[in-house]
Amino acid sequence: MKIVRVNMSNRTITVEELPEKYRLLGGRALTSRIIADEVPPTCHPLGAHNKLVFAPGLLTGTHAPSSGRLSVGAKSPLTGTIKESNSGGICSQKLASLGIRALVIEGKPVGKDFYVLVIGEDGFALRPAGDLVRKGCYEVNERLWAEYGAKTGVICIGPAGEMLMKVAGVSTNDGEGHPGRYAGRGGLGAVMGSKGLKAIVIATNKTFEAPVADPEKFRIAQRALTKALTSHPVSAQALPSYGTAVLVNIINEAGGLPTRNFSAGRFEEAAATGGEAMAEAVKQRGGAGKMGHPCHPGCVIRCSNIIPDEKGEVLCAPVEYESTWALGANCGIGNLDHIAMLNRLCNDLGLDTIETGVTLAVLMEAGVLAFGDGERAIELLDREVRNGTPLGRIIGAGAAVAGQVYGLTRVPVVKGQGMPAYDPRAIKGIGVTYATSTMGADHTAGYATAANILKVGGFVDPLKPDGQVELSRNLQVATAFVDSTGLCLFTAFALLDMPEAMQAVVDLITAKTGRPFTVEDAVKYGQEILRTERSFNAAAGFTSAHDRLPEFMEEEPLPPHNAVFDVPAAEVDTVFNF
Amino acid sequence: MKIVRVNMSNRTITVEELPEKYRLLGGRALTSRIIADEVPPTCHPLGAHNKLVFAPGLLTGTHAPSSGRLSVGAKSPLTGTIKESNSGGICSQKLASLGIRALVIEGKPVGKDFYVLVIGEDGFALRPAGDLVRKGCYEVNERLWAEYGAKTGVICIGPAGEMLMKVAGVSTNDGEGHPGRYAGRGGLGAVMGSKGLKAIVIATNKTFEAPVADPEKFRIAQRALTKALTSHPVSAQALPSYGTAVLVNIINEAGGLPTRNFSAGRFEEAAATGGEAMAEAVKQRGGAGKMGHPCHPGCVIRCSNIIPDEKGEVLCAPVEYESTWALGANCGIGNLDHIAMLNRLCNDLGLDTIETGVTLAVLMEAGVLAFGDGERAIELLDREVRNGTPLGRIIGAGAAVAGQVYGLTRVPVVKGQGMPAYDPRAIKGIGVTYATSTMGADHTAGYATAANILKVGGFVDPLKPDGQVELSRNLQVATAFVDSTGLCLFTAFALLDMPEAMQAVVDLITAKTGRPFTVEDAVKYGQEILRTERSFNAAAGFTSAHDRLPEFMEEEPLPPHNAVFDVPAAEVDTVFNF
Repeated sequence: MKIVRVNMSNRTITVEELPEKYRLLGGRALTSRIIADEVPPTCHPLGAHNKLVFAPGLLTGTHAPSSGRLSVGAKSPLTGTIKESNSGGICSQKLASLGIRALVIEGKPVGKDFYVLVIGEDGFALRPAGDLVRKGCYEVNERLWAEYGAKTGVICIGPAGEMLMKVAGVSTNDGEGHPGRYAGRGGLGAVMGSKGLKAIVIATNKTFEAPVADPEKFRIAQRALTKALTSHPVSAQALPSYGTAVLVNIINEAGGLPTRNFSAGRFEEAAATGGEAMAEAVKQRGGAGKMGHPCHPGCVIRCSNIIPDEKGEVLCAPVEYESTWALGANCGIGNLDHIAMLNRLCNDLGLDTIETGVTLAVLMEAGVLAFGDGERAIELLDREVRNGTPLGRIIGAGAAVAGQVYGLTRVPVVKGQGMPAYDPRAIKGIGVTYATSTMGADHTAGYATAANILKVGGFVDPLKPDGQVELSRNLQVATAFVDSTGLCLFTAFALLDMPEAMQAVVDLITAKTGRPFTVEDAVKYGQEILRTERSFNAAAGFTSAHDRLPEFMEEEPLPPHNAVFDVPAAEVDTVFNF
Repeated sequence: MKIVRVNMSNRTITVEELPEKYRLLGGRALTSRIIADEVPPTCHPLGAHNKLVFAPGLLTGTHAPSSGRLSVGAKSPLTGTIKESNSGGICSQKLASLGIRALVIEGKPVGKDFYVLVIGEDGFALRPAGDLVRKGCYEVNERLWAEYGAKTGVICIGPAGEMLMKVAGVSTNDGEGHPGRYAGRGGLGAVMGSKGLKAIVIATNKTFEAPVADPEKFRIAQRALTKALTSHPVSAQALPSYGTAVLVNIINEAGGLPTRNFSAGRFEEAAATGGEAMAEAVKQRGGAGKMGHPCHPGCVIRCSNIIPDEKGEVLCAPVEYESTWALGANCGIGNLDHIAMLNRLCNDLGLDTIETGVTLAVLMEAGVLAFGDGERAIELLDREVRNGTPLGRIIGAGAAVAGQVYGLTRVPVVKGQGMPAYDPRAIKGIGVTYATSTMGADHTAGYATAANILKVGGFVDPLKPDGQVELSRNLQVATAFVDSTGLCLFTAFALLDMPEAMQAVVDLITAKTGRPFTVEDAVKYGQEILRTERSFNAAAGFTSAHDRLPEFMEEEPLPPHNAVFDVPAAEVDTVFNF
């Protein structure tokens, strides 16, 4: 078990034994701990003092179902907070199988050269990126597979990350070489770009070779978790059939689908942009199209998809709920092919789809382009962002900056990060999460939509302020834990509803580590992560004044429910009172 | 004595008696107090909850020498802090002479219409701005003088303020109708724009009609202050002869003139951009050119100037030290005509010259234009900013945003505001002021250059960290007081060196108000202002993490002294320990 440190100031690579204090930390717990221990909270996010940390989850690289998430952490250039963003894809299992618990990219080169870090079974090397520079993620993936073999793990940035755009994410690949699995949020691609790192190649076929202390106990727990995941209706039916975009019609019906820069909660063309429409397109167009696609080996949920174009060729893989919303309803765009092309361009340029869509909608509000104009939006990404023009750079700087550049007051961000696909006025639990998350506006940090809308893990009326803070608190704690295991957050539907699923997860950890781990330990584990992150943020200058939604959401009623966000600030401020 | 409130939501104007609690407050003390009392600290600076407050100083409208400053306050869209910016010109004396102690612009219109507020001797009116909209400040001033008479007071914004650019300042006029007296800093022009207010006309010839409780005692103190100002070498000789730009050669010699985006402390072409060169141009070109020009009646310092073009016609009035530096050395531009034209464009568009120059230099660092390319810089302002193109809007958003848009780490800002013309590595007292001022990086908030370089008010070695915190503390307290009196900050050279001058000021206040006021009261008065402002900022989300200079200034040595900013953070944090 090791930590690999790559110093980009002098291009040296060192390998350390994982210290005992980090032994039980994986994924988010480990990225946040290393950052809190080693990164000065007030440092410039694109400077030499920031660090970019990759960490597989605690269970990643084992046969635990759907456990292949890769956490990526740093101080975020988008939010100024500590940041963890995690992605699926095949890279995390490979790192874990090579015994790498954390990969820490440190320092900063003096010049503007870019490098490729090659991680093999026998060692490490930094090579000049050569003419991969300025190439999109599709070409980078193709060429690295050609050079290092198909199924090679590829982590990379696109031109956006090289240009240090705050919307830039970190791309990881799936088993077919699509670069569309993103640690998208928070501008971590810009941090990677600032380190002069174009790509990381993980040249191994090892996938399930992380060590397990008690294989027999592990197998029992693994079966129990698999059983739960394959029996809960969300993970067993809805997600495999329609992908995450099954939510479009559900959230639209609930009146919480942010439309045209959060000016309404229902989009009249929503159905054309949802999972059912995607399944229909896959069925009708055939070819490379696919629903129920796994983003990494061993996933039993398989919520990913491959959206084909009219000729049946791959248009974009995958198109997720957040992406089809951000680039669709939020921009007033109802044409699925336009949305998929915008998504593909984001994947190629290395842009976070959520932040890109929120930013485009803000620019639509400013009159830079019209709501609904998918073709112009495609042009803006393909020409302006790709070429780094002033307008392209405004898009690449994210919604908060775009709002400042155009003097807007209706800018749906918290701590500088654009809001995801749930309007906090109609789904108030998620509003508490947006306001208070250590990461800026982030739905995954405490997915209150589960209880507010999906009635998973109980029910809390989404339109009333009551109970939302407790709901968000419990979910934020649970999520911090799940984000550390390497388990996909979509396991949480079963974990919330089925006590045996949660028991299976802690049994898996016990069996993996050889150290007893209980459900109570999981709660303490999640709380400790949040305390660490809050403490970093406080030292970076964040206070309760930043734990607030934008003013317009407290004053401007959202149709159709005509609700405002009215969870009292004093109550919001109790979220972390543990 | 009254407060006039103009509600732009419903276009009503109300007049209130000045409450007893505000009786002794003027200028900055009054703008900051009203904002702290009435503006929610977390509100959006361009939203309906912010207020724009104009307040003449406590002595303004009397015959106290050089006492015509106008304070403008709001929550700043540039910094997010409370903000007071003050200007010279003829408006403040007129407001004071009409008995107006504060003019409060509140609310926000629903549409995008603009209005002109007309303040006459008999009352108030809001009129549609008509085709003044989108007009530059020169034309606005000409037309309003044509309509309301020469010598009318005109406060206005240019296209930048209408477009809600964060670099927008508030223009006031001098007695010749030049719109170049600016409450420039902090984006207050954008706040005025957000209120739909294009201009304020003060249609009166009254100048010295503010009431004085004890005229005889006042006259004695007035003579004492005038004597001090006209005998101190800075206010009696240097400033009238060469204007504020007399500092160019002095600060360049000291190695503290920030050059090419704060990459050096000396500019090889500095001499061509300084006050001596301006005086020479005025002498050689003749025509409308003038040194020793007063910005308002009753100024005995007369540091302003009128810079002529080659034909002897007015090119720009005035060109101040900060402007010739920001648009000159900091951009690597050594051509005084280019600088004066850039300054004129700022005055016309309604841009703060400091923030504009700092932003242009940041864009030069990003490669958008070359250091030294004055012609391209002129094009950028005249075309891109005027037309609100994406690049123009990036310039209009200020240095911090431009730095984020281009992913730079060398961005000389504190709390979002660009640094003025003194490099804090070579003049460390001013660095403490930049770091800790309640206003973001602001030289006027505690002008430590006085003791660091000019040896006024003692001497503290500018290159050593010792003593800088105490120096900045004392100056910040004194400045908060001076900013409330209406006295020009350039009276402070005499106040610091000559005890009789400070005694004269408190005697003036005693005589003006009829309530005894001592030097000790002045210190308490200044401290109370700073406490009020700090408290607002804390509630708005500011902590000691924001009281820091940019990382690069602690690490990158500045030629020629090769100094870094090394006043310990723990010591910086004691600035407000009173």
